[in-house]
Amino acid sequence: MIPIQKRALRIIGTMASQRPIFTSNGSYNKVLTVDNMNPHIKKVEYAVRGPIVVRAGEVKKELGKGVKKPFDEVISANIGDAHAMGQQPITFLRQVVALCAYPELLKTDHFPVDAKERARRLLGGCGGMSIGAYSASQGIEVIREDAAKYIEARDGGIPSDPNNIFLCTGASDGVVAMLKLLVAGEGSDRTGVMIPIPQYPLYSATISELNAHLVPYYLDEDNNWSLDMQELERSYSEAKKTCNPKVLCVINPGNPTGQVLSRDNIEKVIKFAVEKGLFLMADEVYQDNVYAEGCKFHSFKKVMFELGSDYSSNVELASFHSISKGYMGECGFRGGYMEAINIQSEVKEQLRKLVSCRLCPPVTGQVALDIVVNPPSPGDPSYDLFLQEKTRNLTDLAEKARLTAEMFNKIPGIKCNDVQGAMYSFPKIEIPAKAVEEARKMGEEPDSFYAMKLLEETGICIVPGSGFRQKPGTYHFRMTILPPKEKMESLFKLFRDFHIKFTQEYSG
Amino acid sequence: MIPIQKRALRIIGTMASQRPIFTSNGSYNKVLTVDNMNPHIKKVEYAVRGPIVVRAGEVKKELGKGVKKPFDEVISANIGDAHAMGQQPITFLRQVVALCAYPELLKTDHFPVDAKERARRLLGGCGGMSIGAYSASQGIEVIREDAAKYIEARDGGIPSDPNNIFLCTGASDGVVAMLKLLVAGEGSDRTGVMIPIPQYPLYSATISELNAHLVPYYLDEDNNWSLDMQELERSYSEAKKTCNPKVLCVINPGNPTGQVLSRDNIEKVIKFAVEKGLFLMADEVYQDNVYAEGCKFHSFKKVMFELGSDYSSNVELASFHSISKGYMGECGFRGGYMEAINIQSEVKEQLRKLVSCRLCPPVTGQVALDIVVNPPSPGDPSYDLFLQEKTRNLTDLAEKARLTAEMFNKIPGIKCNDVQGAMYSFPKIEIPAKAVEEARKMGEEPDSFYAMKLLEETGICIVPGSGFRQKPGTYHFRMTILPPKEKMESLFKLFRDFHIKFTQEYSG
Repeated sequence: MIPIQKRALRIIGTMASQRPIFTSNGSYNKVLTVDNMNPHIKKVEYAVRGPIVVRAGEVKKELGKGVKKPFDEVISANIGDAHAMGQQPITFLRQVVALCAYPELLKTDHFPVDAKERARRLLGGCGGMSIGAYSASQGIEVIREDAAKYIEARDGGIPSDPNNIFLCTGASDGVVAMLKLLVAGEGSDRTGVMIPIPQYPLYSATISELNAHLVPYYLDEDNNWSLDMQELERSYSEAKKTCNPKVLCVINPGNPTGQVLSRDNIEKVIKFAVEKGLFLMADEVYQDNVYAEGCKFHSFKKVMFELGSDYSSNVELASFHSISKGYMGECGFRGGYMEAINIQSEVKEQLRKLVSCRLCPPVTGQVALDIVVNPPSPGDPSYDLFLQEKTRNLTDLAEKARLTAEMFNKIPGIKCNDVQGAMYSFPKIEIPAKAVEEARKMGEEPDSFYAMKLLEETGICIVPGSGFRQKPGTYHFRMTILPPKEKMESLFKLFRDFHIKFTQEYSG
Repeated sequence: MIPIQKRALRIIGTMASQRPIFTSNGSYNKVLTVDNMNPHIKKVEYAVRGPIVVRAGEVKKELGKGVKKPFDEVISANIGDAHAMGQQPITFLRQVVALCAYPELLKTDHFPVDAKERARRLLGGCGGMSIGAYSASQGIEVIREDAAKYIEARDGGIPSDPNNIFLCTGASDGVVAMLKLLVAGEGSDRTGVMIPIPQYPLYSATISELNAHLVPYYLDEDNNWSLDMQELERSYSEAKKTCNPKVLCVINPGNPTGQVLSRDNIEKVIKFAVEKGLFLMADEVYQDNVYAEGCKFHSFKKVMFELGSDYSSNVELASFHSISKGYMGECGFRGGYMEAINIQSEVKEQLRKLVSCRLCPPVTGQVALDIVVNPPSPGDPSYDLFLQEKTRNLTDLAEKARLTAEMFNKIPGIKCNDVQGAMYSFPKIEIPAKAVEEARKMGEEPDSFYAMKLLEETGICIVPGSGFRQKPGTYHFRMTILPPKEKMESLFKLFRDFHIKFTQEYSG
């Protein structure tokens, strides 16, 4: 056999039309390089799991190996991952999953009868009575029916059709599927997607991947991150010059900003969408996470129906929910749903086809979702424990939301709005000019520079505001409200000391 | 308030630059229509869950309601979904999942100690010891380590690096992620992806979605669907005229064609990829499903390493495995992995970033995968039962693979190759010219027309060959080998009667 290098060189010499695999010095030319890869993927950014989080993982390992640090543990306050921070799962949910996974357990006496009944019902919706069978791509029918009933009850009786419900691999999966359908056109006719800034980076990442136009509208930090109608108008008009704005995304309660939209605000947003001919995407995954007094969750769907049939029969709306947040925090199961209403029937067929290529959402996630949309009722054997666990988790979150804003506002140079809902604070920080300069010199965003130093000196892992976008010239970070209550005090002491030291170091 | 119609009409009148939401007759203009949606998504086709399968679902419901049909049940032979067809899950796998879902069960005596140990070990790899926490986006570290050891043992000791392993939401998820990175360029520089025809439609669907070039190479039906090197050459040379062929996909064992590649064949394919500078994607999800005497599964990685370090240190290869197939058939869990070797480090970083946007693969799927890559060993309490169940399932599949080809070949006008591996037969059928004509008149593919009639008259649900692509002018269908053995005889009687009747009806 001719040695591969020689053969390759011969190929270079004799077949100019073919890609040379070895260069003339004998090294291999990669087929796929960062220079020739998909440029849209290259533009994708997802800071919630970005370089600071990667570094946090390394720091954790270093601590494990006994490397000396000024702190004993890494506090992962970067991601809305309640269980990782010690929140306990809902017993009933886990019982039903275990029974479905190993139906032999139905013969034991370790489970309340309602958990067993539920498991039997859900297994009845599975092919071959097994959660190992593929489900329908749109999701198991009985679970979609339960989701529809949940939505009806939530919205005071407004009907929900199980055929409009698509179970997903977490809400993200639904958001991406819907955006995939919506993005089309070339040049100035290319779809524009209006998203709040600051935003959850799934949106900007998907927009990059689909090569759509990101149309930012800025939330009003001075009014607790509210959604200002003039700003929506400005954003839309400006976007019209360069693209075809076709989608309006709203995150309520807000991520990373924690605000809860008022009913009046939602009404205005719906009317705006109608006026401009925009497809509405309502990210409502934090609908159970409303803490502040006077705040209440209003679904976009409900408000739309209250505006009358001109709206309720026409406006195209996709709303998303998830089992990763709320009081359950079951992120690892990757469960969620999308309710899509007033969608053209041919488009709905296209959506069905699209989701069928991935076969089905994980069935254990669907099972877990069923418990969220159809929890134990008063009188059921599992009701009391369920209510107690749900209340415990939500009360805990509410208390930590309050504490977080309060503690940050005691640190000079940090200003934090009320955390009305969701799982995050998004405080504004003053970064001294010298620190900004040093960061820029290193090719870093000033708030990334800040967050990395915070990690190295305190073990606290946050996400820099630049990962969510922010008004130019302002700096923020996102910190979850999830660290255990008993650690809050020491966490904020560490934070405060760091911030003061950082400010002094780079001042004057 | 001005009624919405009037206001909308006023908008039409006064603001010509805005999209009118009501037409002049007062009807609403949808924002998203099948005419203005993403054209690449519109081109996606996925026959395994296409119109015939949708109709099968309706027929099932009609039977449930008591509608009289010439048959009593729908036999879903369209999809590789073993549990739906009655295959029993592997006990150890399900025990570990149940224990991880509800760790209270660790305190009971319903589980063998090795299942408990395993659950504890896996929970130790989860944030907060909970499968409800997000895992690392690349997958739980201990499970990636187990997968690496599995690959090493499979390949006779060739090293595998856990950092090259990406756990996925089923193998599909990995295939799509890799293709997303690979597709780039415009016009004749746009990436071409070489795929076998007939193919598993995930490939054509993803190529459509990514707007890449599908470069077909035809498997040789007359030689039991083998992969002919001259045909690869022809396919590549032809593609060079219109695109930039950069990826070579091989499915081994074949789906839908059931062939198992010989070692020699694989060696030639690898050399071909090197010669042409192609990125290799090896879909090896049926690696445990090899039935025919004299056939053996050879991984692309192993053959590559046996060719020497020129190959093993250079050729970019992504190999895919899944828990949906094999002897476990756990489709609903959506678990799988990709091993990607010789990938440029910057590209691997891009891949890590890309998968992080979807947060993580479902953790229960990862847990189930761990059992597949690290099953009980001889001497473990669960070993005997595990081996018995695994052997039972594989023996059963081998028997049904043999039966399927044998029975089809007894029907005049149907010709079926040996099912050497995987889970499907892909017989060729003769369709009379009159039937072809009638199908075309209805705008249908002749084999779809045939499959629909088969469904309506026998309840047997298969997928028309056109859904997988086939040589023009030939007709096929894919039928799984999964229906229960005891139903095989009656199934083939129904099939035979139908085929003879169909042929007579449209002949002469």
